[in-house]
Amino acid sequence: MGEGSGDGAGPKVAIVMGSQSDWPTMQCTADVLDELGVPYEARIVSAHRTPDRMYAFGKGAADEGFGVIVAGAGGAAHLPGMLSALTHLPVLGVPVESKALSGQDSLLSIVQMPAGVPTGTLAIGKAGATNAGLLAAAILALGDAGLSRRLQDWRAARSAAVAERPEDA
Amino acid sequence: MGEGSGDGAGPKVAIVMGSQSDWPTMQCTADVLDELGVPYEARIVSAHRTPDRMYAFGKGAADEGFGVIVAGAGGAAHLPGMLSALTHLPVLGVPVESKALSGQDSLLSIVQMPAGVPTGTLAIGKAGATNAGLLAAAILALGDAGLSRRLQDWRAARSAAVAERPEDA
Amino acid sequence: MGEGSGDGAGPKVAIVMGSQSDWPTMQCTADVLDELGVPYEARIVSAHRTPDRMYAFGKGAADEGFGVIVAGAGGAAHLPGMLSALTHLPVLGVPVESKALSGQDSLLSIVQMPAGVPTGTLAIGKAGATNAGLLAAAILALGDAGLSRRLQDWRAARSAAVAERPEDA
Amino acid sequence: MGEGSGDGAGPKVAIVMGSQSDWPTMQCTADVLDELGVPYEARIVSAHRTPDRMYAFGKGAADEGFGVIVAGAGGAAHLPGMLSALTHLPVLGVPVESKALSGQDSLLSIVQMPAGVPTGTLAIGKAGATNAGLLAAAILALGDAGLSRRLQDWRAARSAAVAERPEDA
Amino acid sequence: MGEGSGDGAGPKVAIVMGSQSDWPTMQCTADVLDELGVPYEARIVSAHRTPDRMYAFGKGAADEGFGVIVAGAGGAAHLPGMLSALTHLPVLGVPVESKALSGQDSLLSIVQMPAGVPTGTLAIGKAGATNAGLLAAAILALGDAGLSRRLQDWRAARSAAVAERPEDA
Amino acid sequence: MGEGSGDGAGPKVAIVMGSQSDWPTMQCTADVLDELGVPYEARIVSAHRTPDRMYAFGKGAADEGFGVIVAGAGGAAHLPGMLSALTHLPVLGVPVESKALSGQDSLLSIVQMPAGVPTGTLAIGKAGATNAGLLAAAILALGDAGLSRRLQDWRAARSAAVAERPEDA
Amino acid sequence: MGEGSGDGAGPKVAIVMGSQSDWPTMQCTADVLDELGVPYEARIVSAHRTPDRMYAFGKGAADEGFGVIVAGAGGAAHLPGMLSALTHLPVLGVPVESKALSGQDSLLSIVQMPAGVPTGTLAIGKAGATNAGLLAAAILALGDAGLSRRLQDWRAARSAAVAERPEDA
Amino acid sequence: MGEGSGDGAGPKVAIVMGSQSDWPTMQCTADVLDELGVPYEARIVSAHRTPDRMYAFGKGAADEGFGVIVAGAGGAAHLPGMLSALTHLPVLGVPVESKALSGQDSLLSIVQMPAGVPTGTLAIGKAGATNAGLLAAAILALGDAGLSRRLQDWRAARSAAVAERPEDA
Repeated sequence: MGEGSGDGAGPKVAIVMGSQSDWPTMQCTADVLDELGVPYEARIVSAHRTPDRMYAFGKGAADEGFGVIVAGAGGAAHLPGMLSALTHLPVLGVPVESKALSGQDSLLSIVQMPAGVPTGTLAIGKAGATNAGLLAAAILALGDAGLSRRLQDWRAARSAAVAERPEDA
Repeated sequence: MGEGSGDGAGPKVAIVMGSQSDWPTMQCTADVLDELGVPYEARIVSAHRTPDRMYAFGKGAADEGFGVIVAGAGGAAHLPGMLSALTHLPVLGVPVESKALSGQDSLLSIVQMPAGVPTGTLAIGKAGATNAGLLAAAILALGDAGLSRRLQDWRAARSAAVAERPEDA
Repeated sequence: MGEGSGDGAGPKVAIVMGSQSDWPTMQCTADVLDELGVPYEARIVSAHRTPDRMYAFGKGAADEGFGVIVAGAGGAAHLPGMLSALTHLPVLGVPVESKALSGQDSLLSIVQMPAGVPTGTLAIGKAGATNAGLLAAAILALGDAGLSRRLQDWRAARSAAVAERPEDA
Repeated sequence: MGEGSGDGAGPKVAIVMGSQSDWPTMQCTADVLDELGVPYEARIVSAHRTPDRMYAFGKGAADEGFGVIVAGAGGAAHLPGMLSALTHLPVLGVPVESKALSGQDSLLSIVQMPAGVPTGTLAIGKAGATNAGLLAAAILALGDAGLSRRLQDWRAARSAAVAERPEDA
Repeated sequence: MGEGSGDGAGPKVAIVMGSQSDWPTMQCTADVLDELGVPYEARIVSAHRTPDRMYAFGKGAADEGFGVIVAGAGGAAHLPGMLSALTHLPVLGVPVESKALSGQDSLLSIVQMPAGVPTGTLAIGKAGATNAGLLAAAILALGDAGLSRRLQDWRAARSAAVAERPEDA
Repeated sequence: MGEGSGDGAGPKVAIVMGSQSDWPTMQCTADVLDELGVPYEARIVSAHRTPDRMYAFGKGAADEGFGVIVAGAGGAAHLPGMLSALTHLPVLGVPVESKALSGQDSLLSIVQMPAGVPTGTLAIGKAGATNAGLLAAAILALGDAGLSRRLQDWRAARSAAVAERPEDA
Repeated sequence: MGEGSGDGAGPKVAIVMGSQSDWPTMQCTADVLDELGVPYEARIVSAHRTPDRMYAFGKGAADEGFGVIVAGAGGAAHLPGMLSALTHLPVLGVPVESKALSGQDSLLSIVQMPAGVPTGTLAIGKAGATNAGLLAAAILALGDAGLSRRLQDWRAARSAAVAERPEDA
Repeated sequence: MGEGSGDGAGPKVAIVMGSQSDWPTMQCTADVLDELGVPYEARIVSAHRTPDRMYAFGKGAADEGFGVIVAGAGGAAHLPGMLSALTHLPVLGVPVESKALSGQDSLLSIVQMPAGVPTGTLAIGKAGATNAGLLAAAILALGDAGLSRRLQDWRAARSAAVAERPEDA
């Protein structure tokens, strides 16, 4: 895992999730941050099973040197919103796809925050996790010209890779 | 408000809600507890705006003499589930009807808790708030024969009040 | 099956379900009650196929020594709500995941009870079944200090078991 | 109210509903039966508040001379399905429009019955109530040539009344 | 297939469906009618691909000796409602489970009929198909004491077959 | 009403709807066709109440000189799809906003057509009705250079009318 | 692939899609156009990854000789609507089935266009893709008598192929 | 309107919306930015009616000195996602409440973006608009210690303003 990659001078991204079972989704955040050379740390912080850990993490995140928090959770997904309550840092939420309701519960639990406590929410599942990494990078790039350049190159390369015509399998 | 009604010997019910705007709904809980002579306290405890207050309340609820917690919230409704994480007392959740999604977001945010941290969820809106009071009473009645009798009488009276035939307005 | 475990002095939990096909879900209720040493009985009581059995069970549940009823059903899930109508005991409902609608029908059929007849509803599927057991235990623990201690230990052990960081598969 | 209209020789329709508040909807059933000269009786039978009355009604409906039962209910609407469990007569269900969920809960609670216990479900609200009356009439018309003729005339008259072109208000 | 079973003196049930792909669902209607000794015919009648056939079938169904029509269709399911428009016979609709939306589209397309043209709608999928057969039988049993007896026996046998307790697999 | 406007040489648009109550919505189709100088006729054609009229209309629409059919309906909205089955002309469907389900039933009943029988579906309500007129015009403009020019001008004028900045009310 | 089939004198159909992964769905459009002898071109045009390509394609589509555009996309599906904004040609949208939400997001993102910018929307998935091809053909057939004949034959052949009765597998 | 407030040295926030009718919602973004002293500009940029303006705005936003874009739109809401495709700046999306579907279409159209093109989505309606402003401020505060202090004070003041107990109206 590319944790600690990057020069470490700028703020890190925290990737937190409610349980180990969210990792296959949230690894997409880590992967794209690796591609962009953004330092991050991944941790398990469960709103429901480890509320004290969540409280300590949220209150201390800024002092730990984090600049953006990406939080993934499924079902009655309270982690992203509670972290938004506990820190003034920007918090991005990833609705992990749930079994019965396919992440519709996760999405609504994350996005429908009351006025005053924002969580920037991405798409359900892996696409959302990748995009949380990209949005975190875009945020940090406002203060990091090198990262901004790498992000623009990453986007340009992706655009250039789109084929002109579909091909039969 | 009938707070403090009842003999005070048994445990109280805590009625907590995310904001003043939830009170017209949650007052139904208070009303039915008044009818049944169950002592309670009503407080505003916002998961998102007052997380410190929520932590203190949840951790201290048992020591404060509460036996059951009724928590109402709307939208990305995290209060009931977070209290379920912070106390071993039974927690009942009331999905307050939200503006855009009519409480569907509130319902899913409260009911879809992960294994390990239960919240007993009632119907959306005032019916759910009344029923949270009744369920809290049924729980406390397991250790309070007098309350059990009052609850059964309340139920019998309601059944007896159902007319045989509909009447034109 | 751990039926009859516990000392038997306190009230038992009834685990009832509409059909044998609900058992793989509802067994999670039994499992967690076993872990906590709470006595229970599991029965098939179908609202639709055995309405007389349901009527007799609901009316007699208190006299049988039950303290809490956990009822699981799927689709047009009427068992939890009808039992709530037939007994003054606390009734907890588990929406079993249905085939076409993934338990959304089960959830709404259970949770949207009218004012006056409460059913404490848990999450769709196995998580809900586990949590129904935990909530039943929390309710009975109000009058059983030993159970309260076991429940708090169970919760603390679960919290302690949460890893700090996700691990690749 | 036209109860008792018709010759009374054939079976009657029972119109039952969970509460007085359902009557503005269910009156549409009565109205169309009046138009068709089908005898009926309207009663309040609450699954949740008067389960004993419901059992007695369902078990005795055939002996009372009813041929078809039309049952309306809202929210966690258990009345139609429970009557389907208690009688072998055809039961038609009308999902009454609920406040928060606009009758989606009522619809799923009525229509998603398990194999073995059918409820013929109509549309949400007044259209469904009118149609329940028409379907009850169509059922009884199988054994009543006069009613069949009246029903066909009613339908033909309605078709003939459809204007060729829309008119500005 | 038991088509033509029964004495043939009473009216038959028509089982119609939009395509061959609906047959695995609609066969459940045929099966239960076979069990009850009710004569029926199964046909493919597509509202969209064979509108003329549908028109002729609907208009002629009563003259063909049918007493009840059971119509199954999926997606934008127009067959049941169009038949309801074309005949005064009772029409029962079965929402066949669709691929993308799991039959939610089928259900709404069938059940939400406007006032004046009723379709008695059953559950999504095979349970609904079985129940359409049972409801058709209950309708015909109003004029057939022998069938009424067989239907009541069928129901009693099913109730008696429900085990008292769940069994581990 | 601007029926008959336009030169009449090219094909007309048929605007059909299930009932007079759909006219406030469908008038938006007529209005935009008036603005574009496209001839049209508006008629009430109910799939459910006037199936004979619908069959005659659908089968004869091409011979009547119609080039595109715009059909609006609500609830179990069968008119657009049935017309798609009855004519080879392009059919556009407008889901009229229904009372209980806000047009979600109308939308699914219209758009989810099976392979082989297309209905081009527009948005729920008045926006969809306006757009059905615009799409009908775009279709007819393929063979009418003057209409194509008028349509492009209409679009350009609308774009030009968009203010640069929002203004307080 | 039958691109370039047909005589090439009339306008072509453009089949565009957001990514290679949409091709298994959109190939159904191509297939039916091949059957009907309608010339077409299939291209990948991503609203999000290649906005410049989309802009150029939309603005130039009429000059390239396209008469109808069929656009398929999934999730937050912006391609059909953006093309509707960029060209005055008729645009048909196909909601590709998405992973978590089964195409409900795709459907709403495509169909709910504001007044002024129409997209004719077909069903979710392959049925919709086939129907987009058929509707495109119906549109072009207004100015191509030969195509109109082929389309009517295609429809008649499909109707004739519907079996009278279902067959057991 | 407080446009131009703040010292102007740091990056501005762009508040863009699809039409004047979105302004009552999006004004909440402006209001909270005013409270926090963050400079911004509000513009109407319609993806569907003014695609050229949208392209120009999106491509030039970074050069205009914007640091964060807040985009609000309703229905098939394509503006936020298209801007995410056109700029590497962080884009926040506000689902404006739509008439028929209460913003569910807006939400899904904005949040369900494919991997590679992120839009940070807030709640439906005014709460989401306020939160978009707060999240934009939190993002800019990473590089502006004064703003970070003002934001923390704003949050602390809001927390302090929460009453301890609900009050009757």
